[in-house]
Formats: sequence, C-alpha cells, structure tokens
Amino acid sequence: MTSAARTGPAGSGFTIGNLPFGVFRRPGHQPRVGVALGRDVIAMAVLAERGLLPEEVPGEVFRRRHLNGLLELGPSAWGQTRARLQELITDGGEIESALVPLDEVELLLPVRVGDYIDFYSSLAHAENAGLILRPEAPELPPAWRHLPIGYHGKAGTVVVSGTPVTRPWGFTGPGAFGPSTKLDFELEVGFVTGPGPVPPRPLSASEAVGYIFGVVLVNDWSARDLQAFEARPLGPFLGKSFATSISPWVVPVSALEGARTSSPTQDPPPAAHLRLEEPWGLDLDLKVTIVRGGQAHTVSSTSFAGHYWTLPQQLAHATSNGASFRAGDLFASGTVSGEGEGQRGSLLELTWGGAQPVDLAGGGRLGYLEDGDEVIMRGSATGVGGGRIDLGEVRGAIVPAAG
Amino acid sequence: MTSAARTGPAGSGFTIGNLPFGVFRRPGHQPRVGVALGRDVIAMAVLAERGLLPEEVPGEVFRRRHLNGLLELGPSAWGQTRARLQELITDGGEIESALVPLDEVELLLPVRVGDYIDFYSSLAHAENAGLILRPEAPELPPAWRHLPIGYHGKAGTVVVSGTPVTRPWGFTGPGAFGPSTKLDFELEVGFVTGPGPVPPRPLSASEAVGYIFGVVLVNDWSARDLQAFEARPLGPFLGKSFATSISPWVVPVSALEGARTSSPTQDPPPAAHLRLEEPWGLDLDLKVTIVRGGQAHTVSSTSFAGHYWTLPQQLAHATSNGASFRAGDLFASGTVSGEGEGQRGSLLELTWGGAQPVDLAGGGRLGYLEDGDEVIMRGSATGVGGGRIDLGEVRGAIVPAAG
Repeated sequence: MTSAARTGPAGSGFTIGNLPFGVFRRPGHQPRVGVALGRDVIAMAVLAERGLLPEEVPGEVFRRRHLNGLLELGPSAWGQTRARLQELITDGGEIESALVPLDEVELLLPVRVGDYIDFYSSLAHAENAGLILRPEAPELPPAWRHLPIGYHGKAGTVVVSGTPVTRPWGFTGPGAFGPSTKLDFELEVGFVTGPGPVPPRPLSASEAVGYIFGVVLVNDWSARDLQAFEARPLGPFLGKSFATSISPWVVPVSALEGARTSSPTQDPPPAAHLRLEEPWGLDLDLKVTIVRGGQAHTVSSTSFAGHYWTLPQQLAHATSNGASFRAGDLFASGTVSGEGEGQRGSLLELTWGGAQPVDLAGGGRLGYLEDGDEVIMRGSATGVGGGRIDLGEVRGAIVPAAG
Repeated sequence: MTSAARTGPAGSGFTIGNLPFGVFRRPGHQPRVGVALGRDVIAMAVLAERGLLPEEVPGEVFRRRHLNGLLELGPSAWGQTRARLQELITDGGEIESALVPLDEVELLLPVRVGDYIDFYSSLAHAENAGLILRPEAPELPPAWRHLPIGYHGKAGTVVVSGTPVTRPWGFTGPGAFGPSTKLDFELEVGFVTGPGPVPPRPLSASEAVGYIFGVVLVNDWSARDLQAFEARPLGPFLGKSFATSISPWVVPVSALEGARTSSPTQDPPPAAHLRLEEPWGLDLDLKVTIVRGGQAHTVSSTSFAGHYWTLPQQLAHATSNGASFRAGDLFASGTVSGEGEGQRGSLLELTWGGAQPVDLAGGGRLGYLEDGDEVIMRGSATGVGGGRIDLGEVRGAIVPAAG
C-alpha cells in the first residue's frame, strides 16, 4: 500500500485523521459497515472476521445495514475502534485486503434514525427568517436567546445523499392544493448520538459531549408555501416531512478536535445546565452548490463556527425535561447562515423570501428550486495535525411533482 | 371453558368481537404477543406453535416484543388472524391452553413507534385553545378547516399505560428554569398503521382506510408553561416530549365497525383527496378520571363521534406531500373535546387556562396536575352485534420533579 492510499490520496479529506463511518453495498452483497479512507472504503466486517478489531467490539455490529449496533456500544468502543484502525492503517499490510474502491459501492443511509430533532440555532438565520416571515413581530422569538429552539421532524423520511427529491404537493392556501412553487434547501450540520443514560436523566452540556458520536451534513428540504399555510400554531409539518437528506458518512467528533473553536458569546449567559467550560464551536467550512442546466453555481459559502447554540447545548436542552434519547437519534443545527449575503444557508434568505432572485453567472436568475436542479452541500475542516477533514457531501436533485 | 370466559365475562369489553392486540410478559419469560379475551390473554405464539393460526402468518411475529412484525404483514394477514381467532374461540377446546390470566402478566408497550404524529382535529379544542392561548388572534388558525393540522412528536418517549410520569423541568420564561407548575393531560385517540405503499405515494382518504391497523387511547402529557415559552415559531417540543402514554391494547379497526358514524359536516367541503364516501366518525365514549388522595373524580366525559377530521383523513393528509409511513407509526387525534364544559379533554380547557379551577366532590379544587395525581383514561364503544368493546385504559401517576 502506498502512503497516499493509507492516509488518503492528495486532495482527499478522508484521511487517517478523519475515518468517517458509513454503510456500503457492493453489487450482489449485503450492506455492511465501512469507513472511508481516501478513495476506498474499509470493509469493517472483514477486519472483524480476522480478529483485527478490539475484542470488546463484537464483530456483528459491522455486518449490519446501519451503524446503530456500533452506536449502541458507546464512546469507549468507538474510541477503541478508531485507535485500532489508525494503528492498522499506519502499519499497512493487513488492512489492504479489506479495502474496496469507493466507486464500486453504493452508499446507504448510515443510521436508522430514531427521533429526528431539528433546531433553529443560527442567529443570522433566525433574524432573517423573522424579518422575512413575521415582519410585524420582533426579529427573534422571546425564547431564542434563552434556549435552543427546536422541533421534531419526521425520522422515516431521512434519506441518504443522492436520493432524488420529488417536488411535494400541498396546501398553499384555502382551497389551493398543488405542487409547491417555493421549494427550498436548508444547509445544516447534524449529529448522531449513542445511547442516552439509563435511567434517562437531564444531561448538562458538558456531560452531553460524551454522548455525541459524529457529524453529518443535512439538507432539510423545505416547501415554504406549504409551511406558511400549515405551521400555525404547531410548527412545520408537511412542508418538511417529504424528505431530509443526510451525508452518507458520519465523521466522528474526535476527528473534529482541530476544528473546535469558541462559539459566539451568549448574552444572556446560558442557564447552568447549558454552560460549557470548553469551546464547542466547530469551524467547519460549508458550501452550497446548485447545478442547473449543467452549470454549477456556489450560492452559499459560510462557516459553522458562528453558530450560536453548540451541539452539546442542543443535546443537553433536549434532555432537560427528562426525555430519553436513543442510539441513532439525529439532531440538526437548523439552517446555518452567516451575517453576509453570500453566507445565507437557504433560498428563503438568499432571495429574501423570493423577492430578490440571485443573478447566476452565465445568465439566469435563482429564485426557489426548479425541477432538475441539483443541490450539493459540502463541508470541511482542518484536522488536528493540519490537513483537511471532509464531511461527506449531501446532494439531491429535484424531480417534477407526481401526477 | 365456560361461555363467559370465551366471550369475555360479564362486564368485560374484551369480547370475541374486540380481540385487541398487545404485548405481555409472564414473570421469568420473554415478552410475547397476546390478545385480550375477558380476564385472560391469548398467548398467540402458543397457538402458532400448534399450527392453529393461518399458514400465511409466520408464527415468529408473535414471539417478538412488539406488534411490528404483525403490523408489517398488512391487512390480509390481520383479517385472517382475527377470523381464525374467532373460530378458535367459538369452537373452544384448543384455545384454552393458550390462555394466561391477565392478572399474572405485565403489559408492555405494544408497538415500537416509528414516527409519532399528533393532530389538532377537535373543533371545540382548537377553538378553546385559541381563545385561551391566543386571545388576540382569530379562534382558529387559517388552515384549520382546510387540512388536519398536525406536528411530529417524540417517538422515543411513547410509554405504556402505568408508566409513572416525572414532572418535567423546563424554561417557563427568560431565566426561569424549574419544574413545570402547569402539568396537564390531553385525552386523545390514536391509531397505528401497517406499512405504507411502496414506492411511497399520496393516499386518498378512502385508500388510507386499508392501512390502519387499530386504535389506542393516548395521553399526550403537556407542560403548558414550558410550551408557552418555547413554541414560537416551531411548535411544541420539550413541553410534550418528556412522555406520551398509550394503552397496552390496540383495538383493531374492524372491531369498531359498529361504532362508525357520520362525522361533523365539514365546511368548506374537503379537497378531493380528503373526501370520504363512507362515514368514518367513531362513536367512542371517552372518560378521564383523576385519582387524588385516594378519591376518583371523573373530570371529563365526551365522545369521539364529534371529532372534525377523521382517522383516514389524517393519514391521507400525512401522505399528501409524498411522505412515506411505516408499520408501527403512531398517529394521534389531538385533544378530544366536546362543546360542553364537562366534555373538555384537557385541564387547560377545563380550568380555562388555570383561571377557573374545578371544584371536586368532597372538597378541594382541581387546577393543573399535582404530584401523586393519577390520570386514568378509558374508552368504549358498541360492538357490531351489540355488547361493549373496551379500548385499553391508559393511566399514569405524577412523580415529583427530580433533583
């Protein structure tokens, strides 16, 4: 094995410092757990069968069609597995026969999602959405600076990157039932958990850190016209439940140690259970590209570092009423928007409610999504020893409405 | 076997015309699927092992700890199983050795819930809630008469009747984090589905009928003070996610044929996909009893017949954007309230936002729930040939807040 293959070839962010987990299928084979390395996937079940993985980690968790078995094992098993993989890659030899080229496999939904919780934790996004959707009200809802506002989304329609998204029908007003004309994306960063404490109890933000397995990119597709009509007083429902796309790779939080940074100062200071001693902002570079008519346009370029409520605070809040959570629960950040116009993570904001379409290079204007548009989200960070850590990309193309 | 045992003893609504499914555990044994009959539970796996159930129904679905395996099989298998059970009960003999006294078993959560969707479909409840919570706005949200408004709840905290409910902590205002002082119940009727169509597609309300397996009672516990602060703009979250209790028995919709009745006239007439030719109102008598200090007080007594949006309309709406659903998804009706004061299905309404506590017989007044209160919900209907069909009851006692 060449050094390039071991640590990821030049240009790949799937390095030995990354090692994201996913689920792959070779044609004619059963789905299996894999780890991305450069342009290959490490077939974890092969390593397990050879007795190369830690004894404490039962090999059968790698023969499943979801990561949930591994997630159930908790942070000690995750850490041991990661450390062993890094040894095997560094040693070379043994690992080589467990490699399958990425372009020979299909990547599947990595997690059987238990509950899907979506937050609303970007200050710029919340302010923009308030100004656009509720101009008569204060920019921020009264609770916004006191707790990470969130809601439950539909777990059963979380799909893996690459799954086409059919334009949904819905009610856009009294008697008006038809295909959405305001189909949007939302750029989000999600995280996946291990099992919660048994019996369930509220976690402090500092404790919550240990329950987070890893990070995915999320496209929380949104039909703004359906959402506007249905959402009072119980929040988003069919305007979002038709599909939520996630990246096929779950990047372990331990791979993002080098990306940790101070998050914005919180004013007022958070309540005791939401206080963190350590910095848990994550400096992830995020980009949204729309491919229309064969032409790629980067429409948003932002950082996750400025996100107001951090991942551990979100998880701690979700448990603060005593609610349990499960291995494989998915939590998403809410739309990630920065202060600048080109840093906005949704078309709602980029076009200011559709009123200000964006001029595209080469002509044409971008309003809401058109049939055939493909939305691609990518994310990366700096690894611990330098080098790049890539999040898996999440992409989806819009298929015309049925019927 | 006596005739009383076969058809349910006098006073039991678990008759041969009911046959609700659940999951039970005998001390020292694994959980198994059972059917309630009078004061016994039919151990379905025992019948399956003896080859007494339809060949098309694999016996292993009855050896699980949830009904999901049976739900996956769909309506033909459900109907065959039910018909065969009715034959076996009528014939007597064979079935007797599969009976276990109900008082020797523990009843478990019957369904591993995929997604939990909660509607808001009672006109009286929506009007009351509007008047109490949003006095400055119109009574009904703009979409209310056009579609069954709903939202996603937390599937992972759906618990079986009898599970104690710990008073949740939460934010009740800026800087105010403490135990809820406005803990409430919501009387609801839920339904559980089989697998949705593959590939997923929108169902008309008439088609949706065939995907509904059965009905449960639901107590959608609600912390009104948490809900008031957090719910703008994304709806209920931690004010409800700490627990949702359901009855241990799922009553097949086919057992409720005799309870079907016209639902209220819908004005405006529903959109084409929500139109039903057949009546799908369900005349279920519903009662809420609160036990406080050893004294039982029936605080609400209402009927489900007046519910504005029907079960098939709710399911059809949930698929109208193309969203899939899974075997074991749970849909709840929203609080069931009638027009009369004693017909209101929550303390929010019974006490008009806490402002008008209810005088209890024997002294004392009922505001929101106190520690130690037990809430018991019961439901029944008239069976096809007369006689009573009981829904399983759902009960839960309030445990003081932790810490």
